[in-house]
Amino acid sequence: MTEKAVARLAGINVGGPARIIPSGDFGLIGLAVMGQNLIMNIADHKFTIVAFNRTVAKVDRFLDNEAKEFPNIVGAHSMEEFVLKLKKPRRIMMLVMAGKPVDDFINALLPLVEKGDIIIDGGNSHFPDTTRRTKALAEKGIRFVGTGVSGGEEGARYGPSLMPGGNEEAWPYIKEIFQSIAAKSDGEPCCDWVGDEGAGHYVKMVHNGIEYGDMQLICEAYDIMKRGLGLSAKEMADVFAEWNKGVLDSFLIEITRDVLRFDDDDGTPLVEKILDSAGQKGTGKWTAINALDLGMPVTLIGEAVFARCLSSLKQERGRAAKALAGPTPNFTGDKKEFLANLEQALYASKIISYAQGFMLIQNAAKEYHWKLNKPSIALMWRGGCIIRSVFLKDITSAYRKNPDLENLLFDDFFNKAIHNAQSGWRDIVSKSALWGVPTPAFSTALSWYDGYRTKDLPANLLQAQRDYFGAHTFKIKPEYASEKYPEGKDNHVNWTGRGGDVSASTYQA
Amino acid sequence: MTEKAVARLAGINVGGPARIIPSGDFGLIGLAVMGQNLIMNIADHKFTIVAFNRTVAKVDRFLDNEAKEFPNIVGAHSMEEFVLKLKKPRRIMMLVMAGKPVDDFINALLPLVEKGDIIIDGGNSHFPDTTRRTKALAEKGIRFVGTGVSGGEEGARYGPSLMPGGNEEAWPYIKEIFQSIAAKSDGEPCCDWVGDEGAGHYVKMVHNGIEYGDMQLICEAYDIMKRGLGLSAKEMADVFAEWNKGVLDSFLIEITRDVLRFDDDDGTPLVEKILDSAGQKGTGKWTAINALDLGMPVTLIGEAVFARCLSSLKQERGRAAKALAGPTPNFTGDKKEFLANLEQALYASKIISYAQGFMLIQNAAKEYHWKLNKPSIALMWRGGCIIRSVFLKDITSAYRKNPDLENLLFDDFFNKAIHNAQSGWRDIVSKSALWGVPTPAFSTALSWYDGYRTKDLPANLLQAQRDYFGAHTFKIKPEYASEKYPEGKDNHVNWTGRGGDVSASTYQA
Repeated sequence: MTEKAVARLAGINVGGPARIIPSGDFGLIGLAVMGQNLIMNIADHKFTIVAFNRTVAKVDRFLDNEAKEFPNIVGAHSMEEFVLKLKKPRRIMMLVMAGKPVDDFINALLPLVEKGDIIIDGGNSHFPDTTRRTKALAEKGIRFVGTGVSGGEEGARYGPSLMPGGNEEAWPYIKEIFQSIAAKSDGEPCCDWVGDEGAGHYVKMVHNGIEYGDMQLICEAYDIMKRGLGLSAKEMADVFAEWNKGVLDSFLIEITRDVLRFDDDDGTPLVEKILDSAGQKGTGKWTAINALDLGMPVTLIGEAVFARCLSSLKQERGRAAKALAGPTPNFTGDKKEFLANLEQALYASKIISYAQGFMLIQNAAKEYHWKLNKPSIALMWRGGCIIRSVFLKDITSAYRKNPDLENLLFDDFFNKAIHNAQSGWRDIVSKSALWGVPTPAFSTALSWYDGYRTKDLPANLLQAQRDYFGAHTFKIKPEYASEKYPEGKDNHVNWTGRGGDVSASTYQA
Repeated sequence: MTEKAVARLAGINVGGPARIIPSGDFGLIGLAVMGQNLIMNIADHKFTIVAFNRTVAKVDRFLDNEAKEFPNIVGAHSMEEFVLKLKKPRRIMMLVMAGKPVDDFINALLPLVEKGDIIIDGGNSHFPDTTRRTKALAEKGIRFVGTGVSGGEEGARYGPSLMPGGNEEAWPYIKEIFQSIAAKSDGEPCCDWVGDEGAGHYVKMVHNGIEYGDMQLICEAYDIMKRGLGLSAKEMADVFAEWNKGVLDSFLIEITRDVLRFDDDDGTPLVEKILDSAGQKGTGKWTAINALDLGMPVTLIGEAVFARCLSSLKQERGRAAKALAGPTPNFTGDKKEFLANLEQALYASKIISYAQGFMLIQNAAKEYHWKLNKPSIALMWRGGCIIRSVFLKDITSAYRKNPDLENLLFDDFFNKAIHNAQSGWRDIVSKSALWGVPTPAFSTALSWYDGYRTKDLPANLLQAQRDYFGAHTFKIKPEYASEKYPEGKDNHVNWTGRGGDVSASTYQA
């Protein structure tokens, strides 16, 4: 639509004294906390930014309060005014609830924007939606970008991690703003172009899945210290503070330290009063489902999601606690040594979780035909976002050294790290099992490590069972290939001496 | 359509000497091994059954060979002939590949059948498809049934487990045939009406998920005996034979014994030559995804599916085996005692898996508004199917005693069983972690047990973290409710002293 037509729609006299001069470098729709903070961040970097919200009163409230000191934050009271205030090609970002609201805003914008304009979805959209939108808008000449935004309210305000993907034509027009406002890690912006279609939101989804995993691992460490060693919140805070100086140095360890030190008005730790029931219907679940769909064993995120599910059965657990007994942890030995082992268990499990996450991303790139730059993904997670850590610097190095690295565990640094960590890790998993303290994430990570490094897993028995009861056939190990069982061939054996020789073809039990 | 019209379509002279007299009690489409065996099973029970297959040559091949001795197996060489040969209301079962073929056959049947006729899908359809088909066909007056069929080729031939659901109007017309051909357990047929819409296929899906779990547990026991104790295939066969006389008495333990005793021509166990790479793109995966969707912690099936995924990375594992070291199992102690512990580990993990499976089914009934009869579900699994076992007799008893049982672990029998098993179970999980033998299913079951019986899980810390970085709010434990933090209210704390007081509303990090 021409500006005149848009202006007419908005009831603005285009030639008159009230003429709107497009001054906005960037526009943002959605003034919840994330949107407000991102706007102020953009304004800090000297861009002129136009703010809009469906409930228009929120625009004025924002301009009169948080945005008061920023002359370069401009409000709009209608979509038309919003669009007219933007320089071309227009760069419009939405920070609204994922799902229908995103499509609604796109549909509302479509009559107002013109070819070459850029629409950016910064919400937590599911990546197939972003793929669909990128394609549909490209057909109309609109460049669509789906970007992951991580870092919570603090990150949005002072430097988030940004993971943009979609229509690559948009990148040159948004690169400067995005990389200016993004967090920096050793001077490098935690933002780069991720890849085609839904790749940005995909990588953000896996980021969130990994975040679920990291949080679960910290919770398990906390639980072991509390129930296994009987440490107080303050003592545990000191442990986390110590860990934050080493290989585990990260945002989540840091805030765990702070959370454990935060007292309620009565002088007791607030954290102990908080209900132990966590939600899970989000991106963590999507990651686990996608892993199942792609056939990738991303077990740690899976367990982390399930752990949240279990936590949410608070009432039922209360009844189970009365009906089901277990051992009482009886720690004897050197606490310092045990805590060093616990640190290694957390570190090793974290390595496994990231190795699994990168396996998944690698596989998704193949499956969805996306080009992805692995070193820059790790770089984007190094700062600004919830999982930011020193650890991700090492992952960035690993993928910079070898972008075709098959698995993180094959990198020298992580190979050494996991070997160094494993005895402590095994000690913790083994003791927790004896003590009755649940460690679903530590344990699954260890099982995965031991499975991954096993040339011959017991799935041979499973294949024999399947052939026995369902004639599902089996393949032979190459080293045992023979005339009777050639390599790669589907074999069926009449295990019982009864029944037919037919193998299951159309029916899968 | 009238018979005449159908006959005309088929090029049959209705009044003439070739007139088709409808003699078939039941019709079956799809002559792969399962279909053929089910037809012979039905014929064994004196019903006249009409056989059809898209590739018509298969009909004649079947009639001339396997079906030769059965006068009551009748062939049809076209869909029209097939339909004409059936008594009304027609009972037509398809045993074809799930997905499009089912819709294709339904569409091909629709012009030929009439109101009141019954179409049954006996394949492994995904339950939402069955729900959709039940509704769509009910609108046309056709009674649709989606039935789970389990038991592999042997089961189909001599008595499968059948789990029918869908349009309940169909049940009186198929009950006799279904319950005649089904397996019997203590004289009771392993077939009953499951519930509305996709309930039959849903229960079959969970059955298959549980089957994944049972097989994984057996594989872990085998792996521990092989790598941990250094037992030979024959020695392990003897252990499984022994277990098959106790609480683990079941089809899968029995065939494991047989598989381990089965030698190749060179006199060595065939199982050791079979490629350890298992497929997983089926109902097990669906169960895990559904569990995630419903927010139910069905961890054991999840791990079993992921274990198959990991097994399928055979080449990569070969490389990992060279790069990643671990401990060497050093068993010392009493083998007999260890094997008794292993039996308990397997038994306890199995109890957890079934407890999780029934939790899932219970929750699905709520979510999808199905009435489900839990005692009869356990009964249907008691015989005929792959997971048939003495164990399911105990589950049937538990639910017969109390159909509203909240969880299997609250039943006296299983409560005692799990308490009795836990020390052995803990010993195995703990030793395997130290030995480097992967036990993803044993371990997750134990972690789940310990989490489930924990009144206060560490998710309080997780909720504090989420409120810290994303203003996601938290609830207070009822026992700590105060004026400042009333029970049930969403609270937000400014943990850092920085940042705003806004809590995340529309944006979820």
